[in-house]
Amino acid sequence: MKTIKILKIGGNVIDNPILLNKFLSDFTAIKEPKILIHGGGKIATDLANKLNIPQTLIEGRRITDSKTLDLAVMVYSGLINKNIVSKLQALDCNAIGLCGADGNLVKSKKRIHETIDYGQVGDIEEVNIIQFQKIIEQGFIPVISAISHDGKGNLLNTNADTMASKIAVALSNLFEVDLIYCFEKNGVLLDVNDDNSILDSINEKEYKRLKDEKIIFEGMIPKLDNAFEALEKGVRKIKICNAQDFNESGTTLVESRFIATKNDLHQNHDLHQKSDLSQ
Amino acid sequence: MKTIKILKIGGNVIDNPILLNKFLSDFTAIKEPKILIHGGGKIATDLANKLNIPQTLIEGRRITDSKTLDLAVMVYSGLINKNIVSKLQALDCNAIGLCGADGNLVKSKKRIHETIDYGQVGDIEEVNIIQFQKIIEQGFIPVISAISHDGKGNLLNTNADTMASKIAVALSNLFEVDLIYCFEKNGVLLDVNDDNSILDSINEKEYKRLKDEKIIFEGMIPKLDNAFEALEKGVRKIKICNAQDFNESGTTLVESRFIATKNDLHQNHDLHQKSDLSQ
Repeated sequence: MKTIKILKIGGNVIDNPILLNKFLSDFTAIKEPKILIHGGGKIATDLANKLNIPQTLIEGRRITDSKTLDLAVMVYSGLINKNIVSKLQALDCNAIGLCGADGNLVKSKKRIHETIDYGQVGDIEEVNIIQFQKIIEQGFIPVISAISHDGKGNLLNTNADTMASKIAVALSNLFEVDLIYCFEKNGVLLDVNDDNSILDSINEKEYKRLKDEKIIFEGMIPKLDNAFEALEKGVRKIKICNAQDFNESGTTLVESRFIATKNDLHQNHDLHQKSDLSQ
Repeated sequence: MKTIKILKIGGNVIDNPILLNKFLSDFTAIKEPKILIHGGGKIATDLANKLNIPQTLIEGRRITDSKTLDLAVMVYSGLINKNIVSKLQALDCNAIGLCGADGNLVKSKKRIHETIDYGQVGDIEEVNIIQFQKIIEQGFIPVISAISHDGKGNLLNTNADTMASKIAVALSNLFEVDLIYCFEKNGVLLDVNDDNSILDSINEKEYKRLKDEKIIFEGMIPKLDNAFEALEKGVRKIKICNAQDFNESGTTLVESRFIATKNDLHQNHDLHQKSDLSQ
């Protein structure tokens, strides 16, 4: 089985041209087949403010009324996606910018929730691995924006971390998948103020305990939930690391054992982990 | 040689959901391999107004400062493109939404002009038929927004009619190409107020005369210039017709002879032909 690397970047990289260029250059240098999945950044929020479209986040998810969906499609699948593709092409990386509607790659269902109306938000139901395979086998490098569709003609806003983990799980049927979540920290830290307090690895049991004890910051939870689900469902390796140094930095998620380094978790119950969360 | 049909739609279809749905349904029914190329519509202009970005047109071309380019990329390659793809997917048409940067499909050069600064506008230099072929052979139906790139990391706004004709010419190396420009009239009319005054066909010599005599409306000129250039360079058949009825309506462009129907051109020097012009 061939290896494929799936990298996810969020707003903090996208909003910073220097970080983004460095990241895209490192991404280009990856020799294996690869996929880049990106969320949004400040641009969508800035544009929403300029257009007087109020923005609401509940549990890290953007509430997506129809105007906000249009905005997300414009910014994520248009501006951000095509600029990344153009920069990658300049580096001789044969990028192709797609969303979940293109080639019917990612189908989702509008989220129905008892108390919260999330609006035009999609929960992923199906990743079309046949179509992904066609694109990858032709030598294209997919650059995926976190917009999916319902198969009935409607686009839906989708969490980029979930998009990455669902695609990673589906492609595990065809490839050995390494999923790499890139963000602004060096990995999962025990002390958010100490970049040296990285956990080299974390297992699900320990993660659940840290979550219950509220040591894991709220914004980090969807990322780790997604990641552990993907690990359970067949993704070979998952790393959470700094976008600037994704080859060297990072915390590896492991299935069965937990290794705490440089700190004893039991003495750090009150530490809160900060993270980015683009959507 | 296989046939491919390349259809171009402009703002008047895109801005009207009923027209657009009818068109997309007819497009889906085409059995041959096909490509859809689209311009923008009122949405970009409306958004520019809301964001206080002044818009200027010179000779039918939008002057594209960097803010206007961002807007064009958002609206054309994001909002319009992905909504069309999503609607086509709902019709079981395996659409894939791309711009010229994706897969390095269409490379252009920033326009340099002695007196007019067009801004971030690209004149097409190269259509990558190898990459187009890969996508088409995999059964994808390309839906192309009129944004190209310079290969150095910059996106460029591109005239959608030109995009269509350049792609048609390039693909003539691989396919028998039928290029169909869809707009709001039934074809090239001799009397803009009489939908029955359609020319069934027009040749280049007659077109030049009508242009010199200012019978052809200014906005129609880039479309016909592009079309005749494409015809000369190997496109098998070119038609200009109504988006609502592209199978039946229309004026066919021919190379060598001119057939005027239902009117004698020499008696109609003062008639002006109105047309759409998306960019």
